[in-house]
Amino acid sequence: MKKRLFTPGPTPIPEDIMLAMAKPIIHHRNPEFKEILKDVNENLKYLFQTSQPVFTLTSSGTGAMESSVCNILNEGEKAIYVNGGKFGARWGGLINTFGGIPIEIKKEWGTPPDADEIIKQIKNHPDTKAVYLTHSETASGTVTAVKEIAKKVREISEALIVVDGITSIGAMEMRMDEWGVDVVLTGSQKGLMIPPGLAFIALSERAWKKVEITKNKNFYFSLQRTKKAFDSGDTPWTPAITLVIGLNEALKMIHAEGIENVWARHSKLAEGIRVGCKALGLELLSKNPSNAITAVYVPEGIDFQKFNDALKYDFGVTVAGGQDHLKGKIFRISHLGYYDEIDMVGMISALEMTLTKIGHKYIPGSGVRAIQNYFNQHV
Amino acid sequence: MKKRLFTPGPTPIPEDIMLAMAKPIIHHRNPEFKEILKDVNENLKYLFQTSQPVFTLTSSGTGAMESSVCNILNEGEKAIYVNGGKFGARWGGLINTFGGIPIEIKKEWGTPPDADEIIKQIKNHPDTKAVYLTHSETASGTVTAVKEIAKKVREISEALIVVDGITSIGAMEMRMDEWGVDVVLTGSQKGLMIPPGLAFIALSERAWKKVEITKNKNFYFSLQRTKKAFDSGDTPWTPAITLVIGLNEALKMIHAEGIENVWARHSKLAEGIRVGCKALGLELLSKNPSNAITAVYVPEGIDFQKFNDALKYDFGVTVAGGQDHLKGKIFRISHLGYYDEIDMVGMISALEMTLTKIGHKYIPGSGVRAIQNYFNQHV
Repeated sequence: MKKRLFTPGPTPIPEDIMLAMAKPIIHHRNPEFKEILKDVNENLKYLFQTSQPVFTLTSSGTGAMESSVCNILNEGEKAIYVNGGKFGARWGGLINTFGGIPIEIKKEWGTPPDADEIIKQIKNHPDTKAVYLTHSETASGTVTAVKEIAKKVREISEALIVVDGITSIGAMEMRMDEWGVDVVLTGSQKGLMIPPGLAFIALSERAWKKVEITKNKNFYFSLQRTKKAFDSGDTPWTPAITLVIGLNEALKMIHAEGIENVWARHSKLAEGIRVGCKALGLELLSKNPSNAITAVYVPEGIDFQKFNDALKYDFGVTVAGGQDHLKGKIFRISHLGYYDEIDMVGMISALEMTLTKIGHKYIPGSGVRAIQNYFNQHV
Repeated sequence: MKKRLFTPGPTPIPEDIMLAMAKPIIHHRNPEFKEILKDVNENLKYLFQTSQPVFTLTSSGTGAMESSVCNILNEGEKAIYVNGGKFGARWGGLINTFGGIPIEIKKEWGTPPDADEIIKQIKNHPDTKAVYLTHSETASGTVTAVKEIAKKVREISEALIVVDGITSIGAMEMRMDEWGVDVVLTGSQKGLMIPPGLAFIALSERAWKKVEITKNKNFYFSLQRTKKAFDSGDTPWTPAITLVIGLNEALKMIHAEGIENVWARHSKLAEGIRVGCKALGLELLSKNPSNAITAVYVPEGIDFQKFNDALKYDFGVTVAGGQDHLKGKIFRISHLGYYDEIDMVGMISALEMTLTKIGHKYIPGSGVRAIQNYFNQHV
């Protein structure tokens, strides 16, 4: 059966990239690989919209999250974080692990944090050293207004703004320098369209000053070791060479399309999916939906397992289910990475045909008609 | 130019594995991937010769080294380590970073530690909690007698034996359970014949008991988190999916060949390279040479750069240079992973022709004749 992946990581890998990674491996201390690293570094800066170096780590995105805690926060230092989903909650786990004092802003899944809630907590805790945000919460498909929050926080506090951009980078606008964000990180298997195994992190000059006085223990994820190697065109440890080769190709594609165009494409595809789902009478979870992933309630009376099996085994479509308390209650459609309009129409079509199979009532063709109309009207 | 990689990581990737990794990516929470993980786990146990689970981490080998320190050693606890090269020295860096008290046994590069030296230090420091060893020191191509050391240490001490098997696993005999080794770790781009990006670690029951009472901070490399996920057939963080798929193929190859046969093949290929080099009048560095890599002195009067350039640009052969104080003084030929006898004859032949080019005196054909003779006499 032809397989169609609509999960928020891994995301589909462009065919040319699969083949580039399948070429005979080269050594990472060779001039040829150093050239690749140089190109990668330049294009990552473009992706993050920063003039700062963007470091490539060999780990999942969680490794970059760890690195932005253990290099930046000392024991006993306060950090605000927003827990509005599984990945926001991970910030709390990390802050705790490394001995920081976590100040949690808890949000219902699907509801983004308000800038004023964060400001209020900073006023309550003026000694807060960092604010940890999740740009696009993958568990609920919800966007945090990073630009606005960064601006307001900066007006009243020196706290560093750290942003988990794991599902946002390459899908949604992120202008690290212009927005005054101090740390941005992401993973490889998302907007970057390559397999999991790499993570990326960039720091502002302000953040670097904090790294220099942070005493938490770190070795593999030490940003000082990473920077030292980076400055001589290298990596501190053996990098995941084939993934870096794929990354180079992916970044060239993004550069050729233009980052604003990549963001606009994601915005259009996401809105198409939302329009299509609503036309089918489906309800969306998020109050501020992400352009990377759409969380949709499983219709009343429909068994998720039955629904998911039909989608998967009859039409080859893999979506993501709900996590934790939303398990069985929502499904999540990814439109992150290597997708175009026809992919989205295909997704809505598979959804329609699945709903027909399992007996959900809706007007046949209404979803596909709606998404096509939307795309036609927004060229 | 046809390229030939003779570096100790990455090592050449079998063609079938390159293609398996180039297939459309699958999701890591799918039943299909969980089946792969199950097979991988079984075959990793065979590779390590252990009945304990072997965990797959997404990181370089250094990540597994970190994990065997921060999960096992508390602040203020003593650990003996052998510094006989760049990778042995890394144990010292890790023990220091995580607040342990490192007791260094310093050896000249190329000289392995003697079991009695370790026993002497344990007698000096009876409160030693762990002994960190490097089975095959990549920087010098030298083997440590792990079996003998583990036996002698166990007779007089409860200290855990931790073995960096990064270049030894899959190349040289390692019987984790039988030898009473407590922790064994390795990386993917070595004997496992796949690209870098994965690391592996297994622990004895004794070692697990220590993990449970160790308080050092860890998150991404937490073995308790890893075990919890492992026990439900999962990984704690998104794994490097394509590399795991390649790993599965590699482990099947090793299983089909038989681990003893894999060890015997490496032993034969390594001895062939040593015989060939000696026949050319070249001097070997190591007093106890590894079957994974052979370190050879650059002949007197020969410029390493000129030698290496000829090897690389005239014959497509990439070897590794010397590190630290041996930079420019030695070169290192890897025979680790996907190699056979003809590859080794080719390597010696490229070496001969390079030496001719740069004016080194030797009897033409003597190296190739010697290695062929050796192979013919040891079928």
